Amino acid sequence: MTTVDLNADMGESFGSWKMGDDESLLGIVTSANVACGFHAGDAVVMGRTCEAAAEHGVCVGAHVAYRDLAGFGRNFIDVDPGRLRDEVIYQLSALRGVAAVHGASVRYVKPHGALYNTIVHHEAQARAVVDAIVAVNSATGADLAILGLPGALVLDLAEQQGVRTLREAFADRAYNPDGTLVSRSQEGSVLHDPDEVAERVVKLVTQGAVTAIDGTEVGIQADSVCVHGDTPGAVAMATAVRDCLAAADVDLRAAA
Amino acid sequence: MTTVDLNADMGESFGSWKMGDDESLLGIVTSANVACGFHAGDAVVMGRTCEAAAEHGVCVGAHVAYRDLAGFGRNFIDVDPGRLRDEVIYQLSALRGVAAVHGASVRYVKPHGALYNTIVHHEAQARAVVDAIVAVNSATGADLAILGLPGALVLDLAEQQGVRTLREAFADRAYNPDGTLVSRSQEGSVLHDPDEVAERVVKLVTQGAVTAIDGTEVGIQADSVCVHGDTPGAVAMATAVRDCLAAADVDLRAAA
Amino acid sequence: MTTVDLNADMGESFGSWKMGDDESLLGIVTSANVACGFHAGDAVVMGRTCEAAAEHGVCVGAHVAYRDLAGFGRNFIDVDPGRLRDEVIYQLSALRGVAAVHGASVRYVKPHGALYNTIVHHEAQARAVVDAIVAVNSATGADLAILGLPGALVLDLAEQQGVRTLREAFADRAYNPDGTLVSRSQEGSVLHDPDEVAERVVKLVTQGAVTAIDGTEVGIQADSVCVHGDTPGAVAMATAVRDCLAAADVDLRAAA
Amino acid sequence: MTTVDLNADMGESFGSWKMGDDESLLGIVTSANVACGFHAGDAVVMGRTCEAAAEHGVCVGAHVAYRDLAGFGRNFIDVDPGRLRDEVIYQLSALRGVAAVHGASVRYVKPHGALYNTIVHHEAQARAVVDAIVAVNSATGADLAILGLPGALVLDLAEQQGVRTLREAFADRAYNPDGTLVSRSQEGSVLHDPDEVAERVVKLVTQGAVTAIDGTEVGIQADSVCVHGDTPGAVAMATAVRDCLAAADVDLRAAA
Repeated sequence: MTTVDLNADMGESFGSWKMGDDESLLGIVTSANVACGFHAGDAVVMGRTCEAAAEHGVCVGAHVAYRDLAGFGRNFIDVDPGRLRDEVIYQLSALRGVAAVHGASVRYVKPHGALYNTIVHHEAQARAVVDAIVAVNSATGADLAILGLPGALVLDLAEQQGVRTLREAFADRAYNPDGTLVSRSQEGSVLHDPDEVAERVVKLVTQGAVTAIDGTEVGIQADSVCVHGDTPGAVAMATAVRDCLAAADVDLRAAA
Repeated sequence: MTTVDLNADMGESFGSWKMGDDESLLGIVTSANVACGFHAGDAVVMGRTCEAAAEHGVCVGAHVAYRDLAGFGRNFIDVDPGRLRDEVIYQLSALRGVAAVHGASVRYVKPHGALYNTIVHHEAQARAVVDAIVAVNSATGADLAILGLPGALVLDLAEQQGVRTLREAFADRAYNPDGTLVSRSQEGSVLHDPDEVAERVVKLVTQGAVTAIDGTEVGIQADSVCVHGDTPGAVAMATAVRDCLAAADVDLRAAA
Repeated sequence: MTTVDLNADMGESFGSWKMGDDESLLGIVTSANVACGFHAGDAVVMGRTCEAAAEHGVCVGAHVAYRDLAGFGRNFIDVDPGRLRDEVIYQLSALRGVAAVHGASVRYVKPHGALYNTIVHHEAQARAVVDAIVAVNSATGADLAILGLPGALVLDLAEQQGVRTLREAFADRAYNPDGTLVSRSQEGSVLHDPDEVAERVVKLVTQGAVTAIDGTEVGIQADSVCVHGDTPGAVAMATAVRDCLAAADVDLRAAA
Repeated sequence: MTTVDLNADMGESFGSWKMGDDESLLGIVTSANVACGFHAGDAVVMGRTCEAAAEHGVCVGAHVAYRDLAGFGRNFIDVDPGRLRDEVIYQLSALRGVAAVHGASVRYVKPHGALYNTIVHHEAQARAVVDAIVAVNSATGADLAILGLPGALVLDLAEQQGVRTLREAFADRAYNPDGTLVSRSQEGSVLHDPDEVAERVVKLVTQGAVTAIDGTEVGIQADSVCVHGDTPGAVAMATAVRDCLAAADVDLRAAA
C-alpha cells in the first residue's frame, strides 16, 4: 500500500501570543514540527504541544531555527557555524527532554525558515546542522533523521555522515520545471484552492510527479508532504489533502 | 576519611561578554554549577564549560534560573508555577543534552540567584522546581539531586518526592546564630580574607560548626561548600580553601 | 457638556505574532496605550500603531512595562528601582521618537499589567516610575501625565512632583464597596455583557457612581475609562460603550 | 590649527556583564559611540554612559545595530529594510531621550559591526539607515550626522538626502592600496604597537595619508579616527594616539 507522511509546523505560539490551530492539525497530520524556543515556542508551549502530539499519536520533529524571536527565524543570519552547531544541539536537547517528560519522542529534525533555505546550498551552515545531529545521535543513542528539500546540500552531507534523510514536498507551492520551488516573490508561487492542492498531493504521492508552473511534468520523490499551519484556511486545506489521499487509498504514516 | 564537595558557579559568560575564570576554578572545585541560558550562558558557553568540566573530572550541575538575562536572575519574578516548572524542565533538558555531547553528565540541580532564595520559603515555586526534577528523573532515568540551603522548604518537598537532597554551606558568608545567612545588606555579611574563609570551611567540614556573627557557635551540616566564582579574588579564595582542606586531611569529592 | 476619555491597549503585536484589533478600536477610543517593546510591541508595530493613531486623531500614551516579553509584563518583578526608572525613561524616549516620526505625540504614561498593580502600593517602584516621568518632562519640555487607579500611591507621588494625574475606571470590571477592583480570581470580577457594561459606564460618567458587587453604590471619579482590547468581543463592547455614551450626550475626548 | 576627532565604542556592558573601560576612554576621546540596547547596552548602561560623556564634555553618537544581543551585532542579518529603518528610529529615539535626561545630546549615528560593513555596499539596508536618520531629523529638528567608511554607499545616499556625513579612519587597522581596510582574516590586518599606531594616526591627520600594507602611500581623508575600546591595551593605545597628536599640535575636537 502506498503511504505518505503529512507534516505541519506546530507550537509556534509564544508567551501570550497565539499562532496556528495546533489542536485541529494534530487530528490530521502524522508529523509535527515543534518549535524549540529560538524562532517561536517557549517551555510551556513546547510541553503542551508534545503532550498533544503524544495523545494524537503524531510523530514529533524538532523545528530548529536561528536565534531570532523578533524575526521569527525568517531572515538569513550569517552566524558562525560553530555557534550554529551548538545552538542546534541546545534546541534538540531541550525538545528531546521536554518531549520525554510528556510521553513523546523526537524522531527527526526540520530546520525552519531561513535556515531551511540557507542549508540547501550554504555548506558551512549545512555542515553545522548535520554535525549537531550527528553529535546528539552519537551521544544519546537517538536516531534523528533530517527532513529537507530534495537535492539540498544538507541532505547529501547528512547521508555521508550516516544520518537518515527524508525528502519533503510542499502541498501548496508551485514547482519549477527543474523541481525547485517557485520563489514566493513570483506570482502563482503559492496555491490557495484546497481541492487543487489535494489533487496535486495525490498525484505527487501516487505518481511521483507534479505539474510545474509551465505545464510540464516533473518527477518529485517525497517522503513527507508539508501542509502549512499558520495560514488562514490551513486546516481546511490539510483536511482536503487527507481526505483525497484516503480516497486514493494512500495510507498516512509518519516517515521518521 | 572526611570528604566534602566544593562547588562554584560557571559558564556565566554570554555571547561576547565574559564572566568569571572558569578554567582556573575547574582546577580547584569538584562540582560546577553550569548556567543554562536563562540568566546567563548560551549554547556555545554551555558546550565549552561542559567540555572543560569533563576534562577536569568535575561534576556538572544545572544552574537553573528565572528567564531574565538582563537581570542575571537576581530579581524575584512572580512567575506562574506551571510556567516555572516547564522552564526548569527546558533548562535541565538543554544542559543534559549539551553535557552528553561533551562527555559530561548532569548530576544535580542548583537553582540560581533569586530563585534559590525564593524557594527557601515560597511553596508554589519550590514545588514547581521539585516537580520539574521529578518529571525529568522519571522520564529519562536520570537521578538528579537538588542542592539547596539547609532547612529550605524545597529540600523538604524534594525528600518527600524521593529526590536526593544536598545541603549547601557558603564559604564566604557570615551566619546568624540560627544558622541562616546574614543578609547581604548587613555589614560583615560577606567575608573577604582568604585565610579566614579557608579556616572557617575546615571547621565547618571537620566539626560541623561555624562561628556566627555574634560569636556563638552554630551547628551546620553541609554536603557541599560554595566558593563564589564571579568576584575578584575568587580563585585565590578557592585555592586557599582547597589547600587548607588538604592540610586538614579532608578529601575533595563531588557530592552528587 | 459632560466628556470622558476612552482608552484601550494597542500595539501589542510582536514580530510575526498578532494581538488585538487595533484598527477597529482606533475608530472608537480617544486614547491609545501603545506598548513600547518591553512587554509587547516592537519598532515596526510601534510605528504602525502611532501612524494609525495619528490618522484617527487618537491620543497616544506610553504603555510602559517590566522587561518581560515571555511573560507579557504580567508578573511582578522585584527589579531594582534605579533600573526600573531607567527602563521607563528608555521606553518613553523610544515611543516619543517613534511617535514624532509618525506625526503623533505621546501625552501620557500608563504602566502596564503587573507594574500597574504594583505601583498602587509599592513605594520604591512607584517613585521610580514618577521619577522617570519627571526626568523626561524636565529634560524635554514634555508634559506627560500619568494614568492610574484612583487612590494609587503612584498618583499621590506624581502630584507631589507636579506630574499631571489621570484617574482610570474599568468598563468591564466589578468594584468592591470601597472602590477597589474585585480580584480577577473572584467570580463575577469581569463583566461580559456589552449592554450592561455600556450602561455602567454611562452611569459612572454622568453620575460618578458605580454599583458595587454587593449592590451598594460607590462614588468613582474617573478621567478615563479603559475598554480592553485583547479579548474576544472587545470591539463589540467598546462600540456599545461609545454608542451609549453618545445617546447620553457624553462627548468622547482625550483626557491627556 | 589642524584638528581631528577621536571616537571609541562605549556603553557595551549589558546587565551584569561588563565590557570596556569607558571611564578611562572618556578622558581621552572626543566622541563616544554609545550602544542603544540592540547589540549591547541597556537602559542603565546607556544612562550612566551618557552622564559620564556629558561630564567629560565628550560628544555622544548612537551606535545603532541589528537586533542581536547574543551575537553582539557582529553577524549580517538579512532583515527586511522597512524593519531595519524602524529599528534604527527606535534606537535613535531611545538614546536621544536617555541622553537628554543626562544632560547630553546625540549628535551623530555610527552603525555598529556587521551593519557598518553591510551598508558600505548593500543598498536597501544603507537606504533604510539613511531614511531613519532623515525621519528623526525631520520630525525632531535634530541634525544627526552619519559616521561611516570613506566611499561607503551609505555616505553617498546620506549626502543625497542632506544628512551630514563624517568619514572615519581606523587607528589600528592596516589599509589596502585602494584605501579599503585589510580583511581581519588576513595576517597583519590589525596593528598592536601603540607607538606605531600613534604615528600612523598623526601622519593620517597631518598629511592625509597612510602607508598601505604593501608599502605604498594611500590618501585617506578622515573626519574622525576610531580607537577601539574593547580590546586589552585599548586605553594605552588611545593614550599614545592622543599624546602623539598633541605633540604634533593637532587639536582634538568632536567632528559632529
